[in-house]
Amino acid sequence: MSPITLHILGCGSAKPTLNHLPSAQILEMRGKYYMIDCGEGVQTTMQRMKLGMLKVGHIFISHNHGDHVFGLPGLISTMALLGRTAQLHIHGPQELEEFLNIVLKVYCEGIDYEVLFHPVRTREHYIIYEDRSVEVWSIPMNHRVPCAGFLFKEKQALPHIKREMIEAFNIPVSQINNIKAGASWTTEDGTVIPHERLTTPAEAARSYAYCSDTRYTLDVATMIKGVDLLYHEATFPQELLAQAKKTMHSTAHEAALIAKNAEAKKLIIGHYSARIKDESLLLKEAKEVFENTILASERLKMDIF
Amino acid sequence: MSPITLHILGCGSAKPTLNHLPSAQILEMRGKYYMIDCGEGVQTTMQRMKLGMLKVGHIFISHNHGDHVFGLPGLISTMALLGRTAQLHIHGPQELEEFLNIVLKVYCEGIDYEVLFHPVRTREHYIIYEDRSVEVWSIPMNHRVPCAGFLFKEKQALPHIKREMIEAFNIPVSQINNIKAGASWTTEDGTVIPHERLTTPAEAARSYAYCSDTRYTLDVATMIKGVDLLYHEATFPQELLAQAKKTMHSTAHEAALIAKNAEAKKLIIGHYSARIKDESLLLKEAKEVFENTILASERLKMDIF
Repeated sequence: MSPITLHILGCGSAKPTLNHLPSAQILEMRGKYYMIDCGEGVQTTMQRMKLGMLKVGHIFISHNHGDHVFGLPGLISTMALLGRTAQLHIHGPQELEEFLNIVLKVYCEGIDYEVLFHPVRTREHYIIYEDRSVEVWSIPMNHRVPCAGFLFKEKQALPHIKREMIEAFNIPVSQINNIKAGASWTTEDGTVIPHERLTTPAEAARSYAYCSDTRYTLDVATMIKGVDLLYHEATFPQELLAQAKKTMHSTAHEAALIAKNAEAKKLIIGHYSARIKDESLLLKEAKEVFENTILASERLKMDIF
Repeated sequence: MSPITLHILGCGSAKPTLNHLPSAQILEMRGKYYMIDCGEGVQTTMQRMKLGMLKVGHIFISHNHGDHVFGLPGLISTMALLGRTAQLHIHGPQELEEFLNIVLKVYCEGIDYEVLFHPVRTREHYIIYEDRSVEVWSIPMNHRVPCAGFLFKEKQALPHIKREMIEAFNIPVSQINNIKAGASWTTEDGTVIPHERLTTPAEAARSYAYCSDTRYTLDVATMIKGVDLLYHEATFPQELLAQAKKTMHSTAHEAALIAKNAEAKKLIIGHYSARIKDESLLLKEAKEVFENTILASERLKMDIF
C-alpha cells in the first residue's frame, strides 16, 4: 500500500510573520498531488520541497481570503512556463471565480492548458470530486465568508487475491477481477471455493480532513467521524477566545475537542495568529484534550497510515 | 547628506528558481521607500530585510507581467492588517488597472486607506511623479507589452549657509532661506556680500535608473545620461542573443553597452533567466564593456553616493 502523504507548505494566518507562510498544503496519493489552499509563495516552497508543480491536478480552495488564494496567479503562470498541457481543476467557493477569471484573462492569454473552475457549495456536505483513488467531500465551515473544509476519503481497495489459490485451483486470469470484486470460484468437480478463502482483505481505506478557517463547530466532528488525520485551525489559545469568536476562528482547545469528538486518530493544528509567540502553549492546550496532537510547520511531511 | 539606498528584494525572471525571487526593489530616500516592481513574495523578503511595509508610499510597476506584479495583492492586504491609513500610490501601465481593481474590490473591502492608481504613458519620457526630494521619470522600454523603466533624479539641494558668515554680518534668520535660494546680503554700510561667499555648494544631486524588462535600446542611454547607478536587466548572455531578441530581453553585454553610452557611474545587472547556472559569466561579459558592474542578488543593499 503506497503511503498517503501530507506536505505542509504554509500554516500561518493572514498577517505574515518570519516563522510562517500563508495556508497551503499538498496531499499526495498514488503519485498525484491534491493541493489544498494556495497562499502566496507556494511556488518557492514547492521547489524547496522538491514537489513538482505539474503533478498538481486539482486545487481545493477553502475560502476566498487572500492568505488562502494569492499563490494562485503565480502558480498558474509558472505551470504554463513549465509547459503544462493537462487541465487544471480549481474547486472553491463561487466568490473566487471573478479573481480567477481576471488572472486568466490578463496574465494567461494563450497558455497551453485549460483551467477549469468548479464552484463548491460551502453550506453542504457532499462529494465535490472523485476519481479512482479518492472521494473529496466538502465540510461546511463557519467563517466570515463562505468557507468549506475538505475530507479526503480513500476509496476502499479490493481484496488481494492469494496467488497460491490461483495456482491450486487453476483459476484463469480472466476471473481474477471477478473474484476480487466478491465472486467465489467453482471447480470442475462442482466444489465452491468461497471468496474469503481466495483472498485476503484489503487494507482499511484512509482519510484526511482539512478544517480551516472556522469558528468552533461541533457538527464537523460528525462529518469526519473516525478520520485518520485531522488538520484543524487553531488560530488562538483559549485565553484569546473572545478574539477567536470575533474573528470566527478556533482555539487550540476547541480544535482538540473536534478531534476528540470525531474520534480522529491524530490531530495537527495550524493557522497560527501572528500574535502567537510560543506555539508550544497551543500544543499543550490541545494535548490536554486530545493527546495525539502535533504542531504544523512549514515543509513538514507526514505519512497517513 | 543622507544616503540613497537601493534594496534588492528580487532579481530573477518569470520562471522561478531556488536562487532568485521575481523582480522587486525599494529605493530608500530620506526615510521614504519607493518600491519598484512587486513580484510575489515581497512581504516575506521585506520582513527579512527589516523594511517596514508602511514606509512605502509609492509603488512603480514597469509592466503588467505576473513576475512584476503578483506581490501586490498580498502587500496591499497586509498593509491594511498593519493598520495603514495613509494613501498608497501605484504607478504603472494602464493594463495593470483591471487586476488592481479586482484585488481591491474582492479582497480589500472596507480597508482603512486609499489605493490610488496613476497610469504611466510608457512610450513617453516624462516626469510621472515628483515630491520635495525627487523627480521620477518614465523611460520607455521595448518589451512584449507596454513597459517603462524609471529614472529617479534627486532634486538639487540648496547650498549650505556658512554659519560664520551669519555671525560675522549679523544676518537675521529670516533672510537665510533667501540667501540659500541665491540672494546676496547687503550690510548696513551698503557693502554687498555675494551669495557665493555666504554659502558652500550643495552636494551634487544623485540619480538611479531602473531598466527592466527591455530589448536593448540605445536611446535609453541618452535619457539616463550620467546616472549614478543603473540597474539594467541582463536576462541572457550574449551567446543567447537570439533568445534575447525573441523574448524582447537584453544580454549582459548589451546592458553594459547602455551603461557605457550613458556614462553611468555604476551598473548592476539582474533579471536572470532560469537557464543561467553561473551568473559570474554574465558579470564577466558585462565587465568587458563596462568595468564597474556588479551582480544583483536578493537582499543586497547598496548606497548610491
